[in-house]
Amino acid sequence: MKTLVIVKIGGNVLDDPEARESFLGDFAALPGPKLLVHGGGKIASEMGLKLGLKPTYHNGRRITDDATIELVSMVYGGLINGQLTARLQSLGCNAIGLRGSDANILPARKRPKTSVDFGWVGDLDPSKLDPFFLSTLLGMGLTPVIAPLTHDNQGNILNTNADAIVSTLATLLSPIYKVRLIYCFEKKGVLERPDDDASVLSELTQEDYSTMKANCSARGGMLPKLDSAFAAAAGGVDTVIIGAAEDLCKNVKKNGTCGTRIMLHN
Amino acid sequence: MKTLVIVKIGGNVLDDPEARESFLGDFAALPGPKLLVHGGGKIASEMGLKLGLKPTYHNGRRITDDATIELVSMVYGGLINGQLTARLQSLGCNAIGLRGSDANILPARKRPKTSVDFGWVGDLDPSKLDPFFLSTLLGMGLTPVIAPLTHDNQGNILNTNADAIVSTLATLLSPIYKVRLIYCFEKKGVLERPDDDASVLSELTQEDYSTMKANCSARGGMLPKLDSAFAAAAGGVDTVIIGAAEDLCKNVKKNGTCGTRIMLHN
Repeated sequence: MKTLVIVKIGGNVLDDPEARESFLGDFAALPGPKLLVHGGGKIASEMGLKLGLKPTYHNGRRITDDATIELVSMVYGGLINGQLTARLQSLGCNAIGLRGSDANILPARKRPKTSVDFGWVGDLDPSKLDPFFLSTLLGMGLTPVIAPLTHDNQGNILNTNADAIVSTLATLLSPIYKVRLIYCFEKKGVLERPDDDASVLSELTQEDYSTMKANCSARGGMLPKLDSAFAAAAGGVDTVIIGAAEDLCKNVKKNGTCGTRIMLHN
Repeated sequence: MKTLVIVKIGGNVLDDPEARESFLGDFAALPGPKLLVHGGGKIASEMGLKLGLKPTYHNGRRITDDATIELVSMVYGGLINGQLTARLQSLGCNAIGLRGSDANILPARKRPKTSVDFGWVGDLDPSKLDPFFLSTLLGMGLTPVIAPLTHDNQGNILNTNADAIVSTLATLLSPIYKVRLIYCFEKKGVLERPDDDASVLSELTQEDYSTMKANCSARGGMLPKLDSAFAAAAGGVDTVIIGAAEDLCKNVKKNGTCGTRIMLHN
């Protein structure tokens, strides 16, 4: 079975031009099949402010009204995805930018309205996912670059969490590839003590994670990220790592010791 | 040889929600392989105004500065392309949105600065064009939906005239398919007398066109459109038609009599 490296980037790697450039050089140089999923960073909020839109959040999740889905379609699907793809091409990586509606790679459902109406937000519909098109592209030597946008098959674009997308795609492709999934983020890995950047855990088991949730050393935005990482590990993904973008190449080495490896059990 | 229908839309078909919806229904229902190229319409200028950008033109062509290439990357590559693709998917057409950098389908060169600096504007580089990826997608039953954005292989996105793109792609695919190329626009076809909507020409030869240019009955924005249409006909494209979007289905019928057929000679 061939190894497929799947990388998720967001935040600082997108927002800081130097960090982005450095990451893209490392990513383009990775040998073998690879796939990139990106989030949105601060760019969408900044562009939204210029357009007079004020972002609304509920528990850290953006409410996506009509104007906001247009905004993220433009910023995630047009600006960021287009820039990443063009830059990767110039670095010799045959990238292809995709959103969920493209070739129907990410069919989703609009999140039902409960006490909160998240608007044009979608959750992937795993029963309708098919790895055929993505594995065909990978087999042709192409590198999919995927924006966090899905669709409801009724003509609507849906804003979808990039961590959830990458976890689902890694699981979907695991019967075909030995998948090495890397979540890039600001820290060197999962921290044992949130305020101590030197307390990077080399491994994190589900038991450890339960403890960390209970004592609040895992909290906030880390929870959905870690939940999706554990879902990938449970779904058969060979290796799941959370670490810093600048350690990407070291992470890809088979016995790399950078970042935190997500383990179902000890 | 299979027939491939290639359609170019812009202007009113994109700007008017009803015209767009009606067109997409007709387009999705066309049998066999098909490909869509879209322009930008007024949406980019409107979004630019909201962002405080004032469009600058030179002889009807937009000057593309740093802010403008970001704007058109967002509007053409993100918003319009994403909306068209998602809507076509909902209509049962397996669309895939693409820009020139995606799988390197449209390599281009930044237009050299002369007396006018057009900025981030590109002209296709026919020597580097390869039909392999697009014909592979078509062979898989996918419908490429192409935004008027190319790239210079140095990481830069370039704004590129959609008429020129569609003409070049139709020529590129003509050795593989019997191509029927349809330019959709506001009028029912090329008008013999610009102010008389009933004076639609059923055919236009290169000789007629020279006469019309000489007596100014072909002028303005029609000139680059007709130049690109004649270039396609000269490049081996089987059928080239200019007509109204609402006549699309009639145009596709082999002996359709709608619109103006572009002929090299009588």
